[in-house]
Amino acid sequence: MAVPHERIDDLMCNGLKLIQDPSLFCFGMDAVLLSSFVRASENDSLLDLGCGNGILPVLLSGKTKARRIAGLELEQKSAALAARNVRLNGLEDRVEIINGDVREADRFFPAASFHVVTANPPYYAAGSGFENPSGERAAARHEIHGTFEDFVKAAAHVLKSSGHFYLVHRPSRLPELFGTLKQHHLEPKKMRLVYPYADEAPTMVLLDCVKGAGPELKTDPPFIVYREPGKYTNELLEAYGMKEDAADE
Amino acid sequence: MAVPHERIDDLMCNGLKLIQDPSLFCFGMDAVLLSSFVRASENDSLLDLGCGNGILPVLLSGKTKARRIAGLELEQKSAALAARNVRLNGLEDRVEIINGDVREADRFFPAASFHVVTANPPYYAAGSGFENPSGERAAARHEIHGTFEDFVKAAAHVLKSSGHFYLVHRPSRLPELFGTLKQHHLEPKKMRLVYPYADEAPTMVLLDCVKGAGPELKTDPPFIVYREPGKYTNELLEAYGMKEDAADE
Repeated sequence: MAVPHERIDDLMCNGLKLIQDPSLFCFGMDAVLLSSFVRASENDSLLDLGCGNGILPVLLSGKTKARRIAGLELEQKSAALAARNVRLNGLEDRVEIINGDVREADRFFPAASFHVVTANPPYYAAGSGFENPSGERAAARHEIHGTFEDFVKAAAHVLKSSGHFYLVHRPSRLPELFGTLKQHHLEPKKMRLVYPYADEAPTMVLLDCVKGAGPELKTDPPFIVYREPGKYTNELLEAYGMKEDAADE
Repeated sequence: MAVPHERIDDLMCNGLKLIQDPSLFCFGMDAVLLSSFVRASENDSLLDLGCGNGILPVLLSGKTKARRIAGLELEQKSAALAARNVRLNGLEDRVEIINGDVREADRFFPAASFHVVTANPPYYAAGSGFENPSGERAAARHEIHGTFEDFVKAAAHVLKSSGHFYLVHRPSRLPELFGTLKQHHLEPKKMRLVYPYADEAPTMVLLDCVKGAGPELKTDPPFIVYREPGKYTNELLEAYGMKEDAADE
């Protein structure tokens, strides 16, 4: 099913697999940790904003029982790859990929139509730092086709009251993220910081925001990736669907 | 120097001592950790907003080289005790206690007159949770004589451009704290979360905000208090001026 320059990765979760195209954006640890952070129950509908090659819709089909999962992706090539990944895993009945712009989410979805929204938005402002030369990869990292506020507006539009918006982002932008989320009545209710090592600064933050909720943030214990160089913590291995013993191999 | 119902505590820092009155508010770990988080150099002037019995001005005289330290305290009894603590430590030339209201900081201090401001403000909204029956102790825990925004306004008024505002608060109020700080142009630049144990939720957050700075938050590694029940981490012992060996006694 993969063409020569592509590869198929085993997602270590319910036998799920993912075709990746190294010339597009390939998923990272942020997508895997976000998928473990999301809670969705049997009757929930879920939308992933900017789904790329479909990693989150596919992983969330295995990690949650959400009955309906949609992925919205602007880049035509990435959306096509995401649709192939849905078929590869036989998920056509449950997962739908839509090729469209997060900034026009209201063209694709009615207001208050989802229980859960997820997003792994671009981390960097357009023009900041090193911009990846490839268009699709640059768009996944830099806010070229939509700022953080565009993602928040889309989530605020499609979420039902009390619905959850789960996202992963950079801790360096936390004050701005909180401000934008609160402005659109998506109250940050739970936060988890991901630290490479216990004595280093965190590199990711996972947020769970609730539409229309009152203020009161719960912060989870630190998530540590490595217990020592080259050895993952058990929690990291669990998120990847690997057994604890694998840590010592 | 202490009267019968009072006690004198050794602050384990440059021989500093503190008279405490158990009928008033006694300092806790938050004041000690905040004092270790503050940076102030030789030529800096420093103001502690709501200084209570003077714990922060006294500790900061030992932990920083700030040439001039002021403490502002509304409660007359606490301010009097703070002034006695300044005399007890022979700090009259360097530390001054002012009996006054944080909401009227502009009556006591000109605009842009301090390099550093510190605060350990009340953590709870007035009327929320259990309110301590004693007036002074209630005021130290609950926002009875000033909200968080009143402290921020006072800090924004007295700080010079690029001056630092250091504070300790509850992580559950982080989204609101960030919003209020940014609104008054005190940009959160550094954050440290304090966790009782490595696998528990944090109970305190230390913030370093810079007047007029651009956005970009640095988060420090987690501060862990106990390495196992009854055994403090070395970092906690250092903040209290105790040797590492003491951990095993």
